Amino acid sequence: MNRPWDHLLLDAHLATLADTGAPYGALAQAAIGWKDDRITFIGRMDALPDAPHALAAQVDSVDGAWVTPGLIDCHTHLVFGGQRAGEFEMRLEGASYEQIARAGGGIVSSVRATRAAGEDALLAQALPRARALLADGVTTLEIKSGYGLEPDTERRMLRTARRIGAELGIDVRTSYLGLHALPPEFADDRAAYVALACDTVLPALAEEGLVDAVDAFCEGIGFTPEETRRLFARARALGLPVKLHADQLSDLGGAALAAEFDALSADHLEWTSEASVRAMARAGTVAVLLPGAFYALRETRLPPIAALRAHGVPIAVATDLNPGTSPLLSLRLAMNMACTLFRLTPEEALRGATVNAARALGLADRGTLTVGARADLVVWDVGQPAELCYWIGGSPARRVFAGGVERGAARMP
Amino acid sequence: MNRPWDHLLLDAHLATLADTGAPYGALAQAAIGWKDDRITFIGRMDALPDAPHALAAQVDSVDGAWVTPGLIDCHTHLVFGGQRAGEFEMRLEGASYEQIARAGGGIVSSVRATRAAGEDALLAQALPRARALLADGVTTLEIKSGYGLEPDTERRMLRTARRIGAELGIDVRTSYLGLHALPPEFADDRAAYVALACDTVLPALAEEGLVDAVDAFCEGIGFTPEETRRLFARARALGLPVKLHADQLSDLGGAALAAEFDALSADHLEWTSEASVRAMARAGTVAVLLPGAFYALRETRLPPIAALRAHGVPIAVATDLNPGTSPLLSLRLAMNMACTLFRLTPEEALRGATVNAARALGLADRGTLTVGARADLVVWDVGQPAELCYWIGGSPARRVFAGGVERGAARMP
Ligand SMILES: [Zn+2]
Ligand SMILES: [Zn+2]
Repeated sequence: MNRPWDHLLLDAHLATLADTGAPYGALAQAAIGWKDDRITFIGRMDALPDAPHALAAQVDSVDGAWVTPGLIDCHTHLVFGGQRAGEFEMRLEGASYEQIARAGGGIVSSVRATRAAGEDALLAQALPRARALLADGVTTLEIKSGYGLEPDTERRMLRTARRIGAELGIDVRTSYLGLHALPPEFADDRAAYVALACDTVLPALAEEGLVDAVDAFCEGIGFTPEETRRLFARARALGLPVKLHADQLSDLGGAALAAEFDALSADHLEWTSEASVRAMARAGTVAVLLPGAFYALRETRLPPIAALRAHGVPIAVATDLNPGTSPLLSLRLAMNMACTLFRLTPEEALRGATVNAARALGLADRGTLTVGARADLVVWDVGQPAELCYWIGGSPARRVFAGGVERGAARMP
Repeated sequence: MNRPWDHLLLDAHLATLADTGAPYGALAQAAIGWKDDRITFIGRMDALPDAPHALAAQVDSVDGAWVTPGLIDCHTHLVFGGQRAGEFEMRLEGASYEQIARAGGGIVSSVRATRAAGEDALLAQALPRARALLADGVTTLEIKSGYGLEPDTERRMLRTARRIGAELGIDVRTSYLGLHALPPEFADDRAAYVALACDTVLPALAEEGLVDAVDAFCEGIGFTPEETRRLFARARALGLPVKLHADQLSDLGGAALAAEFDALSADHLEWTSEASVRAMARAGTVAVLLPGAFYALRETRLPPIAALRAHGVPIAVATDLNPGTSPLLSLRLAMNMACTLFRLTPEEALRGATVNAARALGLADRGTLTVGARADLVVWDVGQPAELCYWIGGSPARRVFAGGVERGAARMP
C-alpha cells in the first residue's frame, strides 16, 4: 500500500515550542507524522482522517507521553584525546595550579593527547560521549576544534566530528576554534600563530568543507579583541558565520565585538555589560549560557539574565562539554543547572536547548515541531515538560528520532 | 563439572577500598570470584591456579576495566507519590513560598499524593527512580518513610521499599521517618502526633519487620531536640538503631544528640559545631553529606569537612533523593557534587558511597571488595577511579552485580 507518510505517533502531548501563545507551544491529544526526514503533520487527534493507519507505514501510540523537538547542544568541545580526571583529583588533593602545570596538566595536556591520537582513536574516545548526549535526547550537536592548534590535528578533530554524525545518524555542526590557546611552539610569537590560524589553516579547512562556523576564545588568558577581529574578518571574507567565547572571566567587550560581526552567538557572558547586550539584541546574536563551566569552576558572577530578557536577546543553553572546565555529558543536566544556578524558567531552558540553540547554529529548519521542520523529536517519560529540567540525572528519554529515524543506539551500552 | 565458584572476572583493575595502604586499595592485573552472594577470591592474576576456567561456571575477562564495590546510597526518600516539577517551575517563574503553599505546594503536596496512592501505584512510580540509581551502580539502597505521617501510608511506603529490593534484586534498607513533618490534621496538637509516631506507629511497623533504622528531621521547621529524643528513646527500647537529619538549616545540636544515642549517622550537617563533630567521633557516628540538597537549595554554608577529617569522623555521600529539595537520580552525580561543591577528594567521595555508606547503614558485610563480603560489584568503563567523580552525567557502568547476580535491568529502558 502506498502511504503518504513514513511514521505517525498518536496520542501525544506535543511541546512544539512554536509561537502558539500556549506555554511550550503545547498541543494536547495530538499526533505528529513525518516522511523521510521532514515533519508532515502536526495536529490534534480529531483532525486526523478516520483511518490513520492508512496514512503511514508505521503508526504507534505514545500513550499521552510528551514529545519535544530533538535537543540541540550548540556548544561542545566533544572531540579530544585523553581526559583530565587526574588533574581534577590533584586539585582536590590540594595541588596548586603551578604544580598541576609542572605535572603536565592544563589545556596543554589535552593538546598533547589530541595531537598524539589518530583519527580512529579520537573517534573511539569521542563516541561514548556523543552517545551519552544522544541517549539524553540530543539530535543536533555542535563540535569545535581547538585542541590541535596545528593544521593536521585541527583537521583530524573536525573530520572526527563529521564521522560522529555519520556514525550516530545525528547532525553534527563544526566550528573552527584555532584561536583557543596559544600552542607551546608559538609561545614567543603570538602574531605568527594568529597569522597561521587566520590565513592558512582556516581557509584550507573551509575549502575542505569542514567548517560550518568560526569561533575564538577572547579572554585575557586567550586571545585579544584585535586578534579575534583579524580572524572574524577572514571568516567574513570566506562567507563563514562566527561565534565567540566572550566575557567569561572578564569584560573585554567580547559580546559587542561578536555582534559587530553579526555573530550567530556569543557564549558564556558572565561579565558582559548591558551595552554589549544591547549590541547583541540589535545584531540578533544569541546568548549561549554554559552553566556546566560555571558550576565546575564554582564561579559566582552570573550572566546578565535580566538584561538579556529585557532587550529580547534569545537565550540558548549548552553543555560546553570539554575535559578541563565542563566534563558534562548531559544537556538535560545543563538545563537543570541553568534553572538552578541561573534561575531560568524550565520553558526558557527548554527553548534554550531547542529553538534558540538552532538559531545559535544558524539553522532555521529545526528546534520546533512544525510542518516542514526536520523530523528530530524525543518521546519523554514525563508528566509535564518542566520535569525535563526538574530531575537531576536519570534517563527519561523513551524514544529518540533523528532525521525521521529512530536511534536505538541511545539505549545501547 | 563441579566448580567451587559461580563466577570469576579476570584482568580487572580492582578498587577494593580495603585498607591496603594503596590509594583506593587498588590491585592491578587482578581477578575477583564469588560463590552464591559472597566474594570468594580477590587476588592477582598470577595467584590464580593454572586453569582458572575450571574454577567457576562463568569466567570472563573485563579487559583491564576498573571494578569497585557496588555503590551504596545510604540516604533517600525514593518512595513518594507525584513529583514537584510544577512547584519548581512556579518558583522559577517568580512565585513566593506563600503563593506556592496556597497553590497546594510544599511537602504537604507530597504527603497528599502519597496518601492517595495505592501500593502498586507507589511501586510503579518509584521503580524508574530505583532503576536509574541501579543503572549508575547502586546495589544497596536506603529508603525512608515520612510522606504518610499516618500509620497506613507509612506502612505502605516501607512495604513498597521492600518490594523495590525484591523486584530489582538489590538490598533495600528501610528507615522509619515518622517525625519528618507535622501532618496537617495535627497542626494544633504536636504532642499527640509525636506520641502517635513514637508509641503506636513505630512499634507496630517494627513488629512487622519494616524498620531497619529510625530517623527524624530535627530542625526549626521540623521537630525539636526534645521530640527527637523521645523518638530515639523508644527506638532504643525496641533495639533499633537511629539516624538523624541534623543541623541542615541551623545548629540545634542535632549531631551531638544523634551521637548521644550512638546513631549510625548524622546527615546534612551544614551547621554542625566542632563540639558536635567531636561527639560524633567518640560515638563512631558517620557524617552523611547530601550535596544534592545543598546544590538545589543554593546553600552557601558548607558542612565542617576539615573538622570531620581532623577528628576522624567517617564521611559518607548520598543522594537524599526526594521530590522537594533533591530530585537527584544518580549517586555518581552526588559524588561529583561532593568533590565540586564540598571539595572532597575523589577517593573520599568513593569511600563515601561504599565503605562509609555501609557503615552509615550498620552493614559490615559490604562496601569493600574482600573475601567474605557480599558479591556486590560494578565494572566501569573508566581509565582511573577518579573518573567516577570527574564526569558529570553519562553512564560508565558496564556491568552491575548485586548479591552475585548480574542486573541486566540496569540497561533496560
Ligand atoms: Zn567552550
Ligand atoms: Zn533526607
